[in-house]
Amino acid sequence: MIDVHVHEVGTRDGLQSVPFFVPTETKKRWCSAEARAGVGEIEVCSFVPVRLLPQFADAAEVVAHALTLEGLTVAALAPNLKGAQRAIELGVHKINYVLSVSESHNRANVRRSTEESVNDFARVVELARSVPEGRRPKIVAGLATALGCTIEGKVPEARVREIAAQVVAAGADELIVADTVGYADPASVRRLFKALRSDVGAMSIKAHFHDTRGLGLANVLAALDADVRAFDASLGGLGGCPYAPGASGNICTEDLVFMLEAMGLKTGVDLEQLIALRGEIQEALKDQPFHGTIAKAGLPKGFEKAA
Amino acid sequence: MIDVHVHEVGTRDGLQSVPFFVPTETKKRWCSAEARAGVGEIEVCSFVPVRLLPQFADAAEVVAHALTLEGLTVAALAPNLKGAQRAIELGVHKINYVLSVSESHNRANVRRSTEESVNDFARVVELARSVPEGRRPKIVAGLATALGCTIEGKVPEARVREIAAQVVAAGADELIVADTVGYADPASVRRLFKALRSDVGAMSIKAHFHDTRGLGLANVLAALDADVRAFDASLGGLGGCPYAPGASGNICTEDLVFMLEAMGLKTGVDLEQLIALRGEIQEALKDQPFHGTIAKAGLPKGFEKAA
Repeated sequence: MIDVHVHEVGTRDGLQSVPFFVPTETKKRWCSAEARAGVGEIEVCSFVPVRLLPQFADAAEVVAHALTLEGLTVAALAPNLKGAQRAIELGVHKINYVLSVSESHNRANVRRSTEESVNDFARVVELARSVPEGRRPKIVAGLATALGCTIEGKVPEARVREIAAQVVAAGADELIVADTVGYADPASVRRLFKALRSDVGAMSIKAHFHDTRGLGLANVLAALDADVRAFDASLGGLGGCPYAPGASGNICTEDLVFMLEAMGLKTGVDLEQLIALRGEIQEALKDQPFHGTIAKAGLPKGFEKAA
Repeated sequence: MIDVHVHEVGTRDGLQSVPFFVPTETKKRWCSAEARAGVGEIEVCSFVPVRLLPQFADAAEVVAHALTLEGLTVAALAPNLKGAQRAIELGVHKINYVLSVSESHNRANVRRSTEESVNDFARVVELARSVPEGRRPKIVAGLATALGCTIEGKVPEARVREIAAQVVAAGADELIVADTVGYADPASVRRLFKALRSDVGAMSIKAHFHDTRGLGLANVLAALDADVRAFDASLGGLGGCPYAPGASGNICTEDLVFMLEAMGLKTGVDLEQLIALRGEIQEALKDQPFHGTIAKAGLPKGFEKAA
């Protein structure tokens, strides 16, 4: 019924870059409204030490609220076993365990080698498997800097495939392949996602693009050509990576939904509701830069969403 | 040697929306610098009555200067026979005769039916044929609102193909297919350009996209898939259509060149020179909104242009 899955990460990747604490009520309202608009999955928070990211001090409360929203898959980011443990205790449906393919970026981000992160990931899978079925979360491996790194520059495709093979062997249920710093171009996207598809077979591979250099939606189009059918995006393009200077902005949820629906690809998301929510959240996050065009330009006259 | 041709239209489509007269020296400097950076074709001005667009009162002087620039194809827009006549007298290499596929848009733009414009176009072709070979300009038919219209909404593909067939029959040397108001999506772009390609054979078809709704570069990627190898763009995304409310901004020349070169497609354009020029022109056009991302975000570390 849904052709392409659009997942919201503004509540995590977006809020992570907001320099003040956003009230818990705003976060809850954001999740509720997105779920109501038809977004099927939200990365609602990050399980990192509160002293590093005080923004997510209320993670438990936000998760508890999100779990009451009908039909919503509640995902949370964890960069290590401890975070994953907490996410499991709180009953999230999905844990997005993020590690960087680029060695230097991984060290800057989580102060360990990529190999140590892969081993840690294996322990997260083991921990999840000890949870009784029915309550057991899916464990997703998020491969950051898979299309370039601000520290190392180009990241070899062979390296990405190698790390992907390792996390799949360790028991990943799904993959997220992330252009964390906005270095990807449509040609590299097509190549990498086609290669990964041939490596991992039918496993779900989601693309996570940043629009830092304006190619975000073109990269989505390239990934669609490589049979990717799930994308992360952030309302108003909010977000970035605090450890990658100049890397600002996920692709915009509302612009992504517009492109897909205009192309005749059903997302299940109500664009008008999303645009209204954008206005509301932008107001709640005063002074934060919001990106994107469809909210400003308006829908084309006679626009029809995918039937 | 060049895989994809990038043509500058900021000097016409861009300046057309600037509400004050830009000094002739700035326009000349702009043309010189773009030619030096490797841009092979520039639409340097529009031949419309000065009372309607005083911006182009200095068209003769700008054309004369552009004609001195080695290797540059000097194009000019003309919306009618009178404008074309003047362009021919001044010795331009190419006349982009623009008519709207949407009847209502053509009336709003040039106060005549599309049929009358097609007949007028035939007279322009005839006039050009009376010019001795060697000095004879190419006559290009620019099909505006080919992917949607702010007045009529959706524009049927059959209508675009019909008008294209008429201008080709009238003797067009090349076609420009324009998403004048930023309504296109990658699926409609692929369909239309593939259909036109099968209709007109080997004739050059250039795409002219606006980024009004953020899909400009995704549409370029879709057009590349349909074998389009020439694109209009505007430095800093300057421009729009004064008769189409909300329709602002051509795709950015520098972002387009970045995407193509990152994909390994040679444009012959020096990106660093282009970014430097953008800064210079933005300063010269104080307070005009410039768009685009690569100039702000900078090139990726280790970026290599197409070899």
